[in-house]
Amino acid sequence: MSAQTDQPAAVTVLGLGPMGRALAAAFLDAGLRTTVWNRTPGRDTELVARGAVPASSAAEAVAAAPLTVVCVVNYDASDAVLRQDAVTAALKGRTVVNLSADIPDRARDAAEWAARHGVRYLDGAIMTPTPSIGTDDAVFLYSGSEELYGEHRPVLAALGGSHTHLGEDAGRAAAYDVALLDIFWTAMAGYSHALAVARAEGVTGAELAPFAQGIAAILPPLFTEFAADTDAGTYSGELNPITSAASTMAHVVHASEAHGIDASLMRVIEGQARRVIARGHGGDGYTRVAEVITGR
Amino acid sequence: MSAQTDQPAAVTVLGLGPMGRALAAAFLDAGLRTTVWNRTPGRDTELVARGAVPASSAAEAVAAAPLTVVCVVNYDASDAVLRQDAVTAALKGRTVVNLSADIPDRARDAAEWAARHGVRYLDGAIMTPTPSIGTDDAVFLYSGSEELYGEHRPVLAALGGSHTHLGEDAGRAAAYDVALLDIFWTAMAGYSHALAVARAEGVTGAELAPFAQGIAAILPPLFTEFAADTDAGTYSGELNPITSAASTMAHVVHASEAHGIDASLMRVIEGQARRVIARGHGGDGYTRVAEVITGR
Ligand SMILES: NC(=O)c1ccc[n+]([C@@H]2O[C@H](COP(=O)([O-])OP(=O)(O)OC[C@H]3O[C@@H](n4cnc5c(N)ncnc54)[C@H](OP(=O)(O)O)[C@@H]3O)[C@@H](O)[C@H]2O)c1
Ligand SMILES: NC(=O)c1ccc[n+]([C@@H]2O[C@H](COP(=O)([O-])OP(=O)(O)OC[C@H]3O[C@@H](n4cnc5c(N)ncnc54)[C@H](OP(=O)(O)O)[C@@H]3O)[C@@H](O)[C@H]2O)c1
Repeated sequence: MSAQTDQPAAVTVLGLGPMGRALAAAFLDAGLRTTVWNRTPGRDTELVARGAVPASSAAEAVAAAPLTVVCVVNYDASDAVLRQDAVTAALKGRTVVNLSADIPDRARDAAEWAARHGVRYLDGAIMTPTPSIGTDDAVFLYSGSEELYGEHRPVLAALGGSHTHLGEDAGRAAAYDVALLDIFWTAMAGYSHALAVARAEGVTGAELAPFAQGIAAILPPLFTEFAADTDAGTYSGELNPITSAASTMAHVVHASEAHGIDASLMRVIEGQARRVIARGHGGDGYTRVAEVITGR
Repeated sequence: MSAQTDQPAAVTVLGLGPMGRALAAAFLDAGLRTTVWNRTPGRDTELVARGAVPASSAAEAVAAAPLTVVCVVNYDASDAVLRQDAVTAALKGRTVVNLSADIPDRARDAAEWAARHGVRYLDGAIMTPTPSIGTDDAVFLYSGSEELYGEHRPVLAALGGSHTHLGEDAGRAAAYDVALLDIFWTAMAGYSHALAVARAEGVTGAELAPFAQGIAAILPPLFTEFAADTDAGTYSGELNPITSAASTMAHVVHASEAHGIDASLMRVIEGQARRVIARGHGGDGYTRVAEVITGR
């Protein structure tokens, strides 16, 4: 934070998509001197009206604060921004927290690049939607130097919610991010498909939604149970054998295709379950599909 | 319920898989005279020890009570049990509540068969796992005659939880069931895959699970929002354009395949998102995939 206690701490935000704008807005709300920049101009109008300082280049932006938060679509984008000579030079000795999403290896590569150029680097991921930013619901993950994390934690706290440092391996936040996005998008894909099937059966989204909430409510304990099963390598099907599961998956495929709705997603899921059964594990629980998808 | 108020109400349960046994146990706990039968003998031992009456045939079982609850793997199975002359004859004038899962058309077909044979028929579906049965968490859906539902509601209440009658169309409970199973199994498939990817990155199930709970927690409001979007035919991508979503889906595919883990599920999901983008709707929200999967 600022060395002069009568000056507010300063932070720079690179990338003003929906998420970058939400981050910058939260920093402004917390009273931080917030400098903003985006590749395509004109995305900062509202933020500047609220007190953000517009920068005319990424190099100018990063020079304005000891801490730069980058939030762009992926690491091709963050590399394109950070790995320009002027930007890299301006970043020397300063800190970058990269909250863009990508795979663990890209995060590790960014950390190595930063180390080579004297840039202090922390990787991160945001696990909640834009409206959560600045509220208790926001979830931020970090990995890389714990010391660096501790140093910037007070400024990052302005983003609200929970902040967790996962370890020194720069790729660890991305590993969690990818796994959690896997859960998120698969659930969303299933829900979108379910809405389409329901609609074809004359059931509106408004009618289905409360019961869908019920399904969301039974996931957390099952998530804990499945995680324990997976860690232990056990696959109890006592309460719900995969033969029974596969039968209900087939219902989804049939009901969907009867209405001309693409069921390729559930076809993949049912196919994996059928392979477990074909291997002689029909009495086991659904988690046994792990063996099929990992090729064990 | 029983005409003689000094006698407990009677109910029969056909099918003693994990769910049938849970239903019978809940009826026993509620003090009902509970007759049980299963195709394969020997599944009733524990129930009989707790006071259930074993029947030596399905026909004998249904004759023992005014209400029979069937809970077998699907409607091929429930048809195989109910459409035997002796069983059909014994059911005449009595009520069947079919809590087996299947597609709406099979439920409608069962209702027509029942009407032709003087069997009073109600269709239903169970939306929660076996441990929920007999507790406040259980969720039961019904469709078909509302009058019949009202008549047997007091006995069905012994199963605990919430009971909802969805309409006179016998297929309606199955329509909800299929849509909700779609959400459930897709979410489970995503979670199993996420556990495998996390594990390959050195993250255990126990480490991932608390954050997975966080993802489960953000689904309910999104479910409501997506349902409203779908009903209204709007697809706002203001907070999260599908181009951004597709990018994170690609991360899941890459991280997964880098570890030799089958990513066909996310490949389907990403492919659908890419088709939305190819149609010129990259700035829209994810719900626009509805058009792709329904072939509009
Ligand atoms: N929105 C959410 O709900 C959410 C939730 C959690 C995490 N995230 C993550 O947050 C990050 C940002 O997401 P977002 O919602 O703001 O939208 P986004 O569409 O993922 O990212 C848009 C931003 O990326 C920039 N960008 C793209 N390619 C670039 C390039 N080659 N060079 C420089 N900048 C480039 C855009 O600049 P231009 O304006 O110039 O195109 C814009 O600032 C993503 O990694 C996303 O996965 C988002
Ligand atoms: N378990 C759960 O968590 C859960 C949750 C919600 C809904 N459900 C639904 O509840 C129903 C029952 O599920 P479940 O968990 O008990 O296990 P299941 O494996 O789906 O069903 C097993 C039952 O089906 C019977 N069955 C199968 N084929 C048959 C046939 N041709 N003729 C007669 N009986 C046949 C079995 O008899 P045998 O013993 O003779 O094989 C056994 O009683 C399913 O529709 C399921 O989708 C289950």
